[in-house]
Order: sequence, then C-alpha cells, then structure tokens
Amino acid sequence: MNLYEQSVRAKKALPQLRGLDAETRRNILLCFADRLLESTDAILKANELDIITGRESGIRESMIDRLRLDAKRIAGIAEGVRQVAALPDPLNRVLEERTIASGIHLKKVTVPVGVIGIIYESRPNVTADCAALCLMSGNACVLKGGKEAWNSSNAIAECMKAALREYGISEDAVMLADRVSHEETAKFMNDRENIDLLIPRGSSRLIRAVVDNARVPVIETGAGICHTYVEASADFDMAERILVNAKCSRPSVCNAMETMLIEKACADAFLPRIVRTMKENGVTMYGDERACAISNEILPAAEDSFDTEYNDLILNVGIVDGLDEAIAHIEKHGTHHSDAILTEDAEHAVRFLNSVDSACVYHNASTRFTDGFEFGLGAEIGISTQKLHARGPMGLQELTTYSYKLEGKGEIR
Amino acid sequence: MNLYEQSVRAKKALPQLRGLDAETRRNILLCFADRLLESTDAILKANELDIITGRESGIRESMIDRLRLDAKRIAGIAEGVRQVAALPDPLNRVLEERTIASGIHLKKVTVPVGVIGIIYESRPNVTADCAALCLMSGNACVLKGGKEAWNSSNAIAECMKAALREYGISEDAVMLADRVSHEETAKFMNDRENIDLLIPRGSSRLIRAVVDNARVPVIETGAGICHTYVEASADFDMAERILVNAKCSRPSVCNAMETMLIEKACADAFLPRIVRTMKENGVTMYGDERACAISNEILPAAEDSFDTEYNDLILNVGIVDGLDEAIAHIEKHGTHHSDAILTEDAEHAVRFLNSVDSACVYHNASTRFTDGFEFGLGAEIGISTQKLHARGPMGLQELTTYSYKLEGKGEIR
Repeated sequence: MNLYEQSVRAKKALPQLRGLDAETRRNILLCFADRLLESTDAILKANELDIITGRESGIRESMIDRLRLDAKRIAGIAEGVRQVAALPDPLNRVLEERTIASGIHLKKVTVPVGVIGIIYESRPNVTADCAALCLMSGNACVLKGGKEAWNSSNAIAECMKAALREYGISEDAVMLADRVSHEETAKFMNDRENIDLLIPRGSSRLIRAVVDNARVPVIETGAGICHTYVEASADFDMAERILVNAKCSRPSVCNAMETMLIEKACADAFLPRIVRTMKENGVTMYGDERACAISNEILPAAEDSFDTEYNDLILNVGIVDGLDEAIAHIEKHGTHHSDAILTEDAEHAVRFLNSVDSACVYHNASTRFTDGFEFGLGAEIGISTQKLHARGPMGLQELTTYSYKLEGKGEIR
Repeated sequence: MNLYEQSVRAKKALPQLRGLDAETRRNILLCFADRLLESTDAILKANELDIITGRESGIRESMIDRLRLDAKRIAGIAEGVRQVAALPDPLNRVLEERTIASGIHLKKVTVPVGVIGIIYESRPNVTADCAALCLMSGNACVLKGGKEAWNSSNAIAECMKAALREYGISEDAVMLADRVSHEETAKFMNDRENIDLLIPRGSSRLIRAVVDNARVPVIETGAGICHTYVEASADFDMAERILVNAKCSRPSVCNAMETMLIEKACADAFLPRIVRTMKENGVTMYGDERACAISNEILPAAEDSFDTEYNDLILNVGIVDGLDEAIAHIEKHGTHHSDAILTEDAEHAVRFLNSVDSACVYHNASTRFTDGFEFGLGAEIGISTQKLHARGPMGLQELTTYSYKLEGKGEIR
C-alpha cells in the first residue's frame, strides 16, 4: 500500500474513532502496552536488523545510539503508553455553553482534529508515543519515520494494530509509512484531502523542509534558540546555577540555552565568573566584541553564531546595554521557544514577560522546564514554536479542535 | 513603499502595540469612528472615483453595488467600529494558572498573534472591520484589498492612521497595500519573517489561490457548502420554515444551505411539498436520480452539482436511505462549515451532532445562524472552515494566541 492509499484509509477510520468513549480508548492503550512487553523479543530482533543494516550503510554511531532499543527501553516505552492512557480525556470537553439570543442552545465542545501526519527521524520510541497520543485524542495518524528505524517502528506499530483489532477497531487508525519515495512524501505533504495536520519532529532541516513544501497545515516544533538574559540586579549565585543548568543539563534538547545575554553594567563583575564555570563544564563560548574584550576564553562569534541552534556544549555570549536591547536581540535571533530573564527588578521582569514574544517566558528559572511533563500536561507530541493553534508543549489537549453543537426548536433567522 | 516594506514596518510596530492597555485600544477605535464620520465627504469622493474608474474598466454592475458607499453606510461602518471597541478585551486573559511540580508559578495568558495579513476583495467596509478587529486584539495588520476599491479603502485607512497618530501610536500598525503586482503578492504570502497569519476573505477562487501559494499559515474562511438533512420523524411544518430560511433568507452568504438531503422514508410525503415552496421562492433545484423521479420540477444534477457553492437561489436535492448515508454524503461533499439535521428522533440528533465533522452542527435550526454576532462573539473577521486554531465564526478572541509566563525563584531541572 502506498502512502496515499494509507492516508485515504486512515481518513476512513475516523468515523469509528469518533465513536469511541474514553474508557475504550484507554483500554486499547493498556492493551498496546501489554503487547509491547510481550513482543519484546520480536521488537529487539527487528531493532537488531535495523542496526545491522544501519552499520552496513555506514550511518554514524550517534545515530545507531538513538536507534538502539533494549528490554529496559521497551519497558519504558510501554510505561509511557500507560501514562497517556491515565491522562484526562481531552475529548467532549465543554469549552463554552450558553443559550444565544435566538434561543438556540450553543455548546462549544472539543473534538479530534482528524488525520495527523507525523514526519520524524530515527527514534523508534516516537512511533509508540505518537500512536498513543493520537489514539487517546481520537485522531487517526499516518507515521512517517526514518527509514533506518523502519523494522523497529514496524514491530511497535504491529503491537498497536493488534490492540486495535482486539477492540474491533480498524487497524487503519494507525498507519506506518513503508519506505517511501520523495515523490510520495511530497504528495503526502500536500494531501489536504486526507491529512488535517502535519507535525514534523526532528532536526531544523527536517522541519524547514516540511514547512517549505507542505500545503497541509503544519505545526512547527522544536527549533529552540533559547536565551537567558542576566541583569545587574540578579542574584549571581542563582544566576550561575540557572545558567549552568540551562546550558549543560541536557545540551542536545530544544529547551537548552543557546545564548546568554549579560547586562553591560554587570559584565565586568559577572562575566569572568560565569565563563570560568562554563569552561569547567566543558562549554565552548562564542561572543560579540564586547564579550570577547572582557574574557579571552570567549572566541569571536561568526556572523551566524547567534542564529545557530547548537544542541551541544556551545554557548553564544552577548553583552547588551539593558532590557530593551535584550528584548530586541531575542526578537531578532530567537525562535519564539523559551527565553528567560534573571533579575531582582520586578518591574523589569514584568516588562520582559510581556514583551518577549515566545511560547514560554521565564523569570528566575531555567528554560529547561519547557516540557509537557514539567508543565503538568503529560506526554507531549512536540513543542510548538509557532503561533497558531498551540504554543509550547503540545499534549493531548493540543491535538484536539472544537465544534459548535447547536440545539434548536425550529429557530430561523 | 512596496508591500514587503509595509510588512517589515507593520512588524516593527508590534512592540508598541503590545504595550497598549485595553482602554487605549478602545479610545483609538472610538476616535477612528469619529474620524470616519467627520470624513464622510472625503470618503464618498474617493468612493465616487472608484466607481467611475470601475465603470470605465467595465466591471460588473453587481460589483459596483458592493463597492458603493453612501453616508448611511459610512455611519454603519463607524457604528461597527464602536461595537468592536465595546467588546471584552481579548488580551491578557488568564487561561490557566497553577504552580507546577518544580515550584514555578505558571500562567497561560492570551497575547496578540502579531502581524495579520488580510487578502480581500472589493467591499471597502472590510478595511474598517479588519483594522478595528486587529487593533483591538493587539495585532498589526497589512490589508490587501481589491484594487477596484483602493481609493475608498485608502480614505478609510487614513481615518484609522489619524486616530493612531492622535494617541502617539505608529501608523504602521495598520498598513493598506497599494495596488501591488502579482510578484509582490506572491512574496507577501510567503513572508514568514514578517507575517504571522494570512486570512483570505472572499470568493472560493481567492481562498484557493492563497492556500495554494502561501507558506505563511492561512486560515481558510467562508467556503460554505452547507447541508440540511430532513428525517421522516421531522416536524414538517418546522422543516419547511427552516429550509426556506436556510436557502432563501440571504442566498449569497456562506451559511446559506446549498444542499437539502431528505430521508427516503419521507421523500414521497415531504419532497413535493418543499419543492413547491422552494419554487414559489424562486429556487432552481438540481437533484439526484431518486429526487428527480419524485418531482419533475427538479432538474438532473450535473457531476459537480453537489460540490458547488452556488451563493444563489439554487439548491441541490438528494434522497438518502437514512442517517448514515446523510453523514457520509456531508463528509464527502461538505466544506466543514455548517450542517443541520431536522428530526424529532433525539438519538439520531445526538449521533448527527457527534459525527458530522463541521465547525457548526445544528439540530432543528437554520444554518444561517453561523455568525459572530448571532453566537454572541461580536464582529467577526471571517468564518473558519478549517480545523486548526479556530473554527466557525472568528471574533476578537480567535485573533489571539497564548504565551506561558513562568515565575521562578531560582528553579533548575
């Protein structure tokens, strides 16, 4: 079955999905988790095949790492699915309810989006996460993962399909794309007839390619050039702790800090100290002229340094005159993901929180908190960096839309 | 100034707009309304110029009609602006607030989307409506209206700019595109750097062109192939009243019914009666084979009849076996705008409301109620027929997005 046919079939599965109550959706996911555990051997065998094929085709060892599963990771994947099943039902929530002037009774109710296409790379756990989140929110999905992980993803998807069959639900509700051509992918990204929403998950190159080539509405996720701005009034001990956490606790993720901005008034006092600490943590630093003039541990920034998401132990350092310049810098170079101000000046904190146009804006905390679990939303399908529909961590609720249901007694206009 | 430069300047106006409290935004709109009334003569003179130019270039008389303003219409436009100023402030609404596990205090707050591009046709009142709705929701806008109405729109936009100046706000917050080339428009629709959202308003051809050519996120509005399905259990007097209202009260608008579906079991009893009434109201009908077999007042439908938005006194008539076929027909031919069931069977009504995947789904009422004012949302910028961000009537609230504001005390992860 080609990708287009898979999309058509996913769409046909929607009416049946819409009819499922929360308990049935939860039970299917618990069954999915059971099937994952029971199929550990089969999944590991499929994973081994991916790893052998990957090695033969010469993919990098870091990618092999992301690809690799073991029994513990599979147990973790199953636990993640159970956690999704335990989340509050996002569907049929009444957002508004009132009798409108005409006498008609209006209810605004959450409903599934429809068919969600997810384009991702080589982590096989994404297959399970996305399948679980989409089913729990009443959506069908078409999953197009990296071909390096196809066998692993397919073994996982088969567990989901088995669970759907056990509850008499069409297994077309979860479609895993087979290794598809560029032409098929291009057609998929433009298939507004069958696909309601595209979510790319992965590198900024992947996301850019989807945004540039899709006619289907896209939610951009994950590109994070996150800033932390330190004012002279900041508690420097706190600042040091937060900055190290934001940069070093997990540099590969999108909510890690890429750029540190320091208010000029405290550059002499604070910069050498934080540079030393960053050095001790293995961080390479690139700075603007003013930063380089203060510390020769800082290398001169290239033209695009401040526009680069390193996802690594590399940090940009900029000196700014004050709040306005910091806000302007973030507007120019940021990705509207997560940005923080460290200050004891309450008025400046409020101005920063109100002026920086990002999904998540922090005062005196690490940007690393931008995460569905941390926010109390449960598992997330991604972190939106765009402004329509959903911003920041996207959990189950963000995979729904709404519909107005209107009950009349013969009203005419 | 070309359209790209206008977009850049609109974006630069955003920080100032974000700083305006509700009272200032309201006052600017009241001032705009005053300026519109005071400038009635100037606007009418500009309008006369558009009409003369339009006649010379041979545009249709129906378009001249849409273009034409008089003192009463200008007073109506000013009143519409005042009504927007009287609406509840959509900004800074706290959607969620809680302390998350880490101890950080989280607030999810409504904020403006940014720069909204609106592409529309020849009704000059759209210029005033959009400028008012965007300003009240804290957004800048770039308005690209039909060139036939340029002088009228410009005279209206000048009133808005005068009001902005009076309050010390950059007049770049409201930009009216001058007559622009196709190349400029294409660049505008792909300018993700400066434009956050595109809303096309007008014919389905215009909307299609924007959707097909834009990289900027688009909200589709207004395409309405609305259905009303009549079951054998319906109150036929009520049904007749609703059907005539849905088709005939204002056939040119998107919430008017285009297709009537009748349950087979009542076709013999009800169809001849409603066909007679529709005839009396000047409606031309096209039907499927079963409908044509019952009434020879119904002409045979062409292949695309059921996929056509007539916006006229023309109606498709289909006979269906029952509820499931009706739902399937609407899924196949509808535009997810507004669809209704007329029935006294409560269980069928619930199934219809839950299964039809449209922005607005009615039981025993006319689809004509899909409207921002009728829903109590106030003026609308359009009726969304897509699923992301907003569905159905889009008022002020739907022109906002949200941001997470997080207050910490030094938390790290």
